[in-house]
Amino acid sequence: MASEFDLIARFFARPAPAGMLGVGDDCAMFPAPAGMHIATSTDMLIQGRHFFPDVDPHALGHKALAVNLSDLAAMGAMPIGCVLGLALPQADESWLAAFAQGFHELAGAHGCPLIGGDTTRSAHELAISVTVFGAVEPGRALRRDAARAGDQIWVSGALGAADVAYRLLDGQLPADDARLAATRTALERPQPRVALGQALAGLAHAAIDISDGLLQDLGHILRASGAGARLDYAAMPVAAPVQGLPAETVLQAVLGGGDAYELCFTAAPADRGRVLDAAARAGVPVTAIGFIESQPGIVVLDADGLPLRELPRGFDHFPVS
Amino acid sequence: MASEFDLIARFFARPAPAGMLGVGDDCAMFPAPAGMHIATSTDMLIQGRHFFPDVDPHALGHKALAVNLSDLAAMGAMPIGCVLGLALPQADESWLAAFAQGFHELAGAHGCPLIGGDTTRSAHELAISVTVFGAVEPGRALRRDAARAGDQIWVSGALGAADVAYRLLDGQLPADDARLAATRTALERPQPRVALGQALAGLAHAAIDISDGLLQDLGHILRASGAGARLDYAAMPVAAPVQGLPAETVLQAVLGGGDAYELCFTAAPADRGRVLDAAARAGVPVTAIGFIESQPGIVVLDADGLPLRELPRGFDHFPVS
Repeated sequence: MASEFDLIARFFARPAPAGMLGVGDDCAMFPAPAGMHIATSTDMLIQGRHFFPDVDPHALGHKALAVNLSDLAAMGAMPIGCVLGLALPQADESWLAAFAQGFHELAGAHGCPLIGGDTTRSAHELAISVTVFGAVEPGRALRRDAARAGDQIWVSGALGAADVAYRLLDGQLPADDARLAATRTALERPQPRVALGQALAGLAHAAIDISDGLLQDLGHILRASGAGARLDYAAMPVAAPVQGLPAETVLQAVLGGGDAYELCFTAAPADRGRVLDAAARAGVPVTAIGFIESQPGIVVLDADGLPLRELPRGFDHFPVS
Repeated sequence: MASEFDLIARFFARPAPAGMLGVGDDCAMFPAPAGMHIATSTDMLIQGRHFFPDVDPHALGHKALAVNLSDLAAMGAMPIGCVLGLALPQADESWLAAFAQGFHELAGAHGCPLIGGDTTRSAHELAISVTVFGAVEPGRALRRDAARAGDQIWVSGALGAADVAYRLLDGQLPADDARLAATRTALERPQPRVALGQALAGLAHAAIDISDGLLQDLGHILRASGAGARLDYAAMPVAAPVQGLPAETVLQAVLGGGDAYELCFTAAPADRGRVLDAAARAGVPVTAIGFIESQPGIVVLDADGLPLRELPRGFDHFPVS
């Protein structure tokens, strides 16, 4: 017999860092950092929608936090802590232990301790809700509405691997064990670009993390900034295990593939050197893929400088209501 | 056709208060109040577990935020803002509009604007996750571990109405339309004691909000404080529409009934007058119901001063795993 309180205590409660109040009171508490703004983001992950029911629970614990840390990264914020809501169809102790371990390992790696939570029972679906908090100097935050015409557009890491892994697991691509082995980590254990985001704070103009696909997420920057973009398809950093697939599969994965959790950001062309330095300090490669234009819309040019006609549609949770 | 982004924009996005960044970026942002601690709490509400599937969506929007504001109240914190995660089996616009209105009305009443969120699709169950943020001076926060032997134990408002409404709706009590009408508001639209919590900050010692039943929640204070309690059953503030029910039903509702969202708190007996003044300022009645003792455990005395033998068990989400 395991009560709600036992579950929290056994798997999730860790001693809170000095000066914080962690799991076990009505609220968690942490000191408000002087002169900073608190950045916060929340994401829900639903079984069958955001992860396969048989996913490795250690990887799921990692990813549930990673997608939220990625939002802090896209703001240029330094993680402070997080809270976790978990609705479980059953209380499987080995599953919970692995989930908690995956969560805590990533939390420890990014200085983002779990300081509060709520577990409850659901009848059908596993639902995970994570809310993260970070700190950022208000004038240095990377907002979506800060792109300026003429900015260079950058993307971190390489694109497409998570999308290919998803399509292999979902049966949309023909079975290919070697390719699945090479892409699965990108889907299940994305590395949030927290250090890069902080290194870019006050340097880059606009930023977003790629959760729904490059074109869709860049589109949020463009709409918020009242701008457009011209992208160079040949410049895109294509993940190695995606190369060699049919051209339309690669196009979909690179431009439309979700779950990448890379940063897409803009910066003044004159700051190109500083951007590369920041990326080197963060240990993450970055690639310039185009420019912000004043004309709305996105144009993707092929290797011959001609606009691509067929662009992938972005991911949307409610395509038809 | 309604996209995820349309849903957020249409029903939940409101202009953020001056100095805050609201819905529409990777993170929401708010200024860290100088010298304060940030208090945060998260709660998940799952259809069928925390609310009936046919509940009025306006009431559900109210309650989803109320249960979280109640945690801020129990900490003595002043609300700053909140984020909402929503997993929906379908996107029903009139339902969403009513839910959002109920949510925003309570948020407005307590100065707790919705500044971020995430909507997604679920296959079966509606899941709601709310995280609230507040500010409290660290030395004035009402912690669970701060009860001292000799403290008077207080409870706000009246007890039992929400539990009776739940049991009437669930068929555990015989149908009684008049009593349901008189108790339903307590279950579906609890009023978080935010003003009372702030008035008690720095005055009361320990506090908790009653979500799982008085005995169970007081038990958390006692465990955290290494103490026990002696309660006077005859002193309990029994909600008017609960009176007249069979004695064991009243006992269950008052001592074991969840969803009350009243505050249970302890304070030095010498501060009785200050507690009553604070309650008067907050416009909430409070009742002294017993004392903290150094001996662990809870004893409830009847009108003759004899210990009650049969005490209700608390509510637990995973009674058997």
